[in-house]
Amino acid sequence: MKLIVLGADGYIGSEFMYRNDIHHDIIVVDNYYKRTLLGEEKITPLYDVPYIHEREWKCKKSFIDITDSSAVDRLIKNFKPDAILHLGEQPSAPWSMNGAGKATRTIDNNLNGTLNIIFSVLAHAPDAHIIKIGSMGEYGTPNVIIPEGWFDLDYRGRQDRLLFPKNPHSIYHLSKVFESDALAFACKTWGLKVTDLNQGFVYGTTSEARSRYCYDAMFGTSINRFIAQAVAGIPLTVYGKGGQTRGLIHISDSIKCLELALQNTPTAGQFVVANQLTEWKTINDIAAMVVGAAEQMAITATIEPIDNPRTEQEEHFYQADHSVMQDYGLRAIPINHALLMEQIDLVRFYKDNIKKELIFPMVKWSKRG
Amino acid sequence: MKLIVLGADGYIGSEFMYRNDIHHDIIVVDNYYKRTLLGEEKITPLYDVPYIHEREWKCKKSFIDITDSSAVDRLIKNFKPDAILHLGEQPSAPWSMNGAGKATRTIDNNLNGTLNIIFSVLAHAPDAHIIKIGSMGEYGTPNVIIPEGWFDLDYRGRQDRLLFPKNPHSIYHLSKVFESDALAFACKTWGLKVTDLNQGFVYGTTSEARSRYCYDAMFGTSINRFIAQAVAGIPLTVYGKGGQTRGLIHISDSIKCLELALQNTPTAGQFVVANQLTEWKTINDIAAMVVGAAEQMAITATIEPIDNPRTEQEEHFYQADHSVMQDYGLRAIPINHALLMEQIDLVRFYKDNIKKELIFPMVKWSKRG
Repeated sequence: MKLIVLGADGYIGSEFMYRNDIHHDIIVVDNYYKRTLLGEEKITPLYDVPYIHEREWKCKKSFIDITDSSAVDRLIKNFKPDAILHLGEQPSAPWSMNGAGKATRTIDNNLNGTLNIIFSVLAHAPDAHIIKIGSMGEYGTPNVIIPEGWFDLDYRGRQDRLLFPKNPHSIYHLSKVFESDALAFACKTWGLKVTDLNQGFVYGTTSEARSRYCYDAMFGTSINRFIAQAVAGIPLTVYGKGGQTRGLIHISDSIKCLELALQNTPTAGQFVVANQLTEWKTINDIAAMVVGAAEQMAITATIEPIDNPRTEQEEHFYQADHSVMQDYGLRAIPINHALLMEQIDLVRFYKDNIKKELIFPMVKWSKRG
Repeated sequence: MKLIVLGADGYIGSEFMYRNDIHHDIIVVDNYYKRTLLGEEKITPLYDVPYIHEREWKCKKSFIDITDSSAVDRLIKNFKPDAILHLGEQPSAPWSMNGAGKATRTIDNNLNGTLNIIFSVLAHAPDAHIIKIGSMGEYGTPNVIIPEGWFDLDYRGRQDRLLFPKNPHSIYHLSKVFESDALAFACKTWGLKVTDLNQGFVYGTTSEARSRYCYDAMFGTSINRFIAQAVAGIPLTVYGKGGQTRGLIHISDSIKCLELALQNTPTAGQFVVANQLTEWKTINDIAAMVVGAAEQMAITATIEPIDNPRTEQEEHFYQADHSVMQDYGLRAIPINHALLMEQIDLVRFYKDNIKKELIFPMVKWSKRG
């Protein structure tokens, strides 16, 4: 299979490549945008990871900016991919909420990248399968079960099958909603083939610490932050009441989902949506699990709720369908102490690199007087 | 009231100004983007209309590009408006579907303009009421009654109140969906005040022919095209089966809705959605009404279905709530022969200006092989 992997320098992209470089004819693409943002914010990950041009993957390498429509057009015209795995996004919700400039940069980067892919695929490789990674945060926290995109609506005595309305948590998530809407439109209107993945929080260590690990409040997820706090001997900062419930998936299962998506090409015009999570927990439960796993490693960790910097529901119903990937054959690993202990072990190895000041929230959602 | 009117050079914007310039302290804004597009496409409206700088409105005038964030920021910081009427958009569905360049220009112009308004209002005038004109075409043609934005969802035994999922007809409509989603997010997250208007096809003549009249297949609506065809003595080109049903509103009622929206400021954080239409008809029924009105003026018109250049349902259920404006006090004028005869009379006056070749569809939706 001729495959383009956009955003191969990231946490998921690089791990995907380590496991899949020999299975396909691949061009990886990254312009090191995430590294640029980390540099601007003076944030360092837990350890350095090699640049793509230093990695020994069996693939071609491209360093174009996917917001450059001509460059994307040339790439797709020349390579004519069978599939495109699109991970080339500004990935941080807090960064996107840190003022108008970063909000619009997030939307520009994420939406324009996806639009360029759509139009180049339409022109040069209309049968290519586009796989885009989104987030469960696009849905927000509705008081009903979250379906996998499509749902059967019964409204005032009539019925239709529509895409479930999303209610994103941040400008970052809003940008992802825009992308999903654009991709759904491209399927409906031009017959493109798209799989749209709404991913939960990804956690877990990659083998040999070869993918980037962010533990800061800007780019790290809550599990990564909690583990860094436990190892650094400072309290785990739960935002607000901690009843926020979020979908979870281990990095191994996340990569497995991408492989399964690649093996299941939609028909022309089909917009497949999968919720890429295997379970869900409250933030309080996640913090308690980290404390428990740390305890088994003789690390005493405590939890300290702080004012919630975000605008979000802190106590709510949560249930999300996730059978598409199960039907494709995913057999998920549920979160457990052993997996967390493996991650704690990695972080402890790099303990001296932890900068405590990076873990406390830097961005507040609400700026209105 | 201190009011900013964005897009005051357009059909609706200029008519609004003729009726409202003395009622408010207004800055009108337009960078003549629509005139630029008409020039690029070599399309001429039915008659010339004055430029804003030539119009004798009682207001200040600005010629900034609203996609320039610094310029929007200065405008809102200095004027501190009570309300912003946002009509500054690329308004054509076919233009937006005419290749990747025009698609992305449409999204850039429309979305970035709205984002700049959101962030400048948030920074400098957070109590300002933003009124944005969207389109009923954002909803598409669901098989259920279209609510006014918010709807009560009963799904698998649980309930929530959410925004109804949209299913836009074109890249232009998709750009409007993006804007609505961004505005809803701004209300929820930062407590802004927004009225989002989903307008049907606007028809009807403005007094003294002082607003632009497009009858071409790119920028003119179906009623305008049909009337130009009747006057020019060529068949009315119904696209496909003609069972496409669309909401309608007369220009006088459209302006009245804007005035009513201005009088009804949402509370902080409230996202008010109104469907700005007063009735709906199939394209076949609209064509037949034009033929009937023409007949009363001794003009013989015929209807000739042509292949549909668009990807859309040609026969479908249609019903849309529209009580918000009624509750505000709108008493609507239904479409009738007299109103159409008034419009036919205007077009007949400028009959020699009609270029028949502009009325036939220039853009096809589906380009996939």
